[in-house]
Amino acid sequence: MSSENREHKAWREAFDFPVPGRAEKPRTKGLTMVIDKGLGLTETDDLLDLASDYVDYIKLTFGTSAFYSTRLLQQKITLVRSYGVDIFPGGTFLEIAVLQNRMEGYMERARELGFTYIEISDGTIEMSPEIRRNAIRAALRADLKVICEVGKKDPRENMPHKRMQEQIAADLEHGAYKVIVEGRESGKGVVIYDAEGKIRADELESLVKGVPNPESLIWEAPLKNQQEELIMRFGPNVSLGNIHPAEVLALEALRVGLRGDTLKACIRGLFRPVLRE
Amino acid sequence: MSSENREHKAWREAFDFPVPGRAEKPRTKGLTMVIDKGLGLTETDDLLDLASDYVDYIKLTFGTSAFYSTRLLQQKITLVRSYGVDIFPGGTFLEIAVLQNRMEGYMERARELGFTYIEISDGTIEMSPEIRRNAIRAALRADLKVICEVGKKDPRENMPHKRMQEQIAADLEHGAYKVIVEGRESGKGVVIYDAEGKIRADELESLVKGVPNPESLIWEAPLKNQQEELIMRFGPNVSLGNIHPAEVLALEALRVGLRGDTLKACIRGLFRPVLRE
Amino acid sequence: MSSENREHKAWREAFDFPVPGRAEKPRTKGLTMVIDKGLGLTETDDLLDLASDYVDYIKLTFGTSAFYSTRLLQQKITLVRSYGVDIFPGGTFLEIAVLQNRMEGYMERARELGFTYIEISDGTIEMSPEIRRNAIRAALRADLKVICEVGKKDPRENMPHKRMQEQIAADLEHGAYKVIVEGRESGKGVVIYDAEGKIRADELESLVKGVPNPESLIWEAPLKNQQEELIMRFGPNVSLGNIHPAEVLALEALRVGLRGDTLKACIRGLFRPVLRE
Repeated sequence: MSSENREHKAWREAFDFPVPGRAEKPRTKGLTMVIDKGLGLTETDDLLDLASDYVDYIKLTFGTSAFYSTRLLQQKITLVRSYGVDIFPGGTFLEIAVLQNRMEGYMERARELGFTYIEISDGTIEMSPEIRRNAIRAALRADLKVICEVGKKDPRENMPHKRMQEQIAADLEHGAYKVIVEGRESGKGVVIYDAEGKIRADELESLVKGVPNPESLIWEAPLKNQQEELIMRFGPNVSLGNIHPAEVLALEALRVGLRGDTLKACIRGLFRPVLRE
Repeated sequence: MSSENREHKAWREAFDFPVPGRAEKPRTKGLTMVIDKGLGLTETDDLLDLASDYVDYIKLTFGTSAFYSTRLLQQKITLVRSYGVDIFPGGTFLEIAVLQNRMEGYMERARELGFTYIEISDGTIEMSPEIRRNAIRAALRADLKVICEVGKKDPRENMPHKRMQEQIAADLEHGAYKVIVEGRESGKGVVIYDAEGKIRADELESLVKGVPNPESLIWEAPLKNQQEELIMRFGPNVSLGNIHPAEVLALEALRVGLRGDTLKACIRGLFRPVLRE
Repeated sequence: MSSENREHKAWREAFDFPVPGRAEKPRTKGLTMVIDKGLGLTETDDLLDLASDYVDYIKLTFGTSAFYSTRLLQQKITLVRSYGVDIFPGGTFLEIAVLQNRMEGYMERARELGFTYIEISDGTIEMSPEIRRNAIRAALRADLKVICEVGKKDPRENMPHKRMQEQIAADLEHGAYKVIVEGRESGKGVVIYDAEGKIRADELESLVKGVPNPESLIWEAPLKNQQEELIMRFGPNVSLGNIHPAEVLALEALRVGLRGDTLKACIRGLFRPVLRE
């Protein structure tokens, strides 16, 4: 929806957002990707009628879209797209298609069903750089946009940052629009998060240092402390993923200083990105 | 809804509630305040069709109501009120209005949108007793009822109990209907809760000792163990806030002994308030 | 719904499920029981339109059904049954009926309201084997199917495995269709779960060893790690209960290897039940 057609917000004239500079849709930064484990049609409509200005992507996570009937999945995809929101199936699907040597058929079916993006990941399986590049190209040929994901789901397989940075660079070069940093649904014990879900600051900084444009990243950040810290670190227009549907407005409040934590930081002058805008 | 018009409950004749004496709506004690982080219209209708007898307030928490269109917010407020439930925006809004010197405009807009209550808090900002009193008066002048809140969101700013007790007394004297004790959405590391969300019994008792009428308090108690302990301490008609929408009936079951924990306490004779009724 | 009438699944031809052999409805193993703390009518319809193939039972948990109007409860029961899903009130109700000497009236009312099953438990109260047997018989006479539950909610009352095994055997002999192993809503500090919700493997094995047919058990397993471990231990067709409505498809993905954790186990050859199928 263009900003001209956007509906009048209830409190627009009453006061200013404490944090200025939040990007509006359509936007290329500050994206919010919602994790969808099985929202029904009515629930989806209800969410987007309220919050579509604050949702960029809906991910039908894991292999959950396998359990939809063709009818319901097509209805849902049509509905989501009518709100100007993109939708894609979880990366686990692509990994299984690779395992079963059915990648092209997978892309075709995704497009036929109406998906607009494909996630390409190797969170669970081993995938050579060649297969990864081929998958990106196959998706683009099938007229699907591509979001890649880096990082292993299993903490025992932790990938060196150098390899993740190379993967990010290669993915973008081969045509991925953005690259997700794995955070899982739990946000615990994976990549930049410790077993309690706290951000390991040194890991974060070391990973980011080798990425030319951090705006190409979407951080999976299901927990509030993660969202808050990433907003404090990168500003209101950091791209965040695996956001629970019920948390979309709460996250937006964090972004613009309408929640205690970031409002406090504004008042104390700790919110550097604001000063920079 | 008057008790005459209330619908017949499905099991009314089948047995008696283990805990007697639960107040019915309209009531002045035993209030339940639901925290709403972004319920859609249909979801709100669905919740209240089932549970409006057990919901007294809906709080559009943080600054989330800033993201509603005027259309949707007015529809939602009208819907909520049609079920005999009051609704108010989160206190963070009032704090920002104070910061931006726009308090009167805020009150007017709240009333225009159809809100019936205003929350006045200083969980994040510093507020002098004079400004607090003026805010209460401005709200009353704008024909809004007032709920105040005491307690700081940030544990490093912990307020002495004496000052909280004075604030509670002053708020009620200046016209607040009830005073909320801060518990945040998380219920952790704030006022009477420790970092794991357990009630610090000594803090609770010391705070309550200086409050002439504990029924003037609404305890934010998002976690089940908190709800259970406060019911055990104050009886089924303690007022509780920040209740997750999906927990409304589970809380009501706790109140009247229709859940294992309080039923057990009834059987063991540990549930003192029952004996007192 | 017979498998002939079942709708076409969106990805059926695109690839095979990594774990084969998942039982389809109507089924006698691999049951999924959803815990319902107060789903509204629309929410229930939305859930089942999407996921009724993966839901066998809905339990209106604790005494929450006491707060429904007769109208709404009958509408909800009719709706749930129209999707080929069974529904029953929480066991706490039966325990209160026993305490108040109103068991027969309770059974009659349950049947009148349209419930298809009754849960018979003694998680909170003491119940003699005679009363338990009588309760099962009264339910069967009232034309209700019976699910029993073993295990105490309060960890201080922990029951020896031998007694639980005897109770399971007696319940099945007296006509119970399945027996639930208590896990509570929290999944913590109860029967096979430690205070953090981890499965105590020795407790699990010791309990199972004395049960002739483990397929007669439904494990309450609200947490993901519990679901995953029980699927790894017993295969995709283990019966699980207290599944949160929002987790139904995520659980189904775990069962068939469409989620990282069980997919990984398949690849590594650790998923013994697959090999056995």
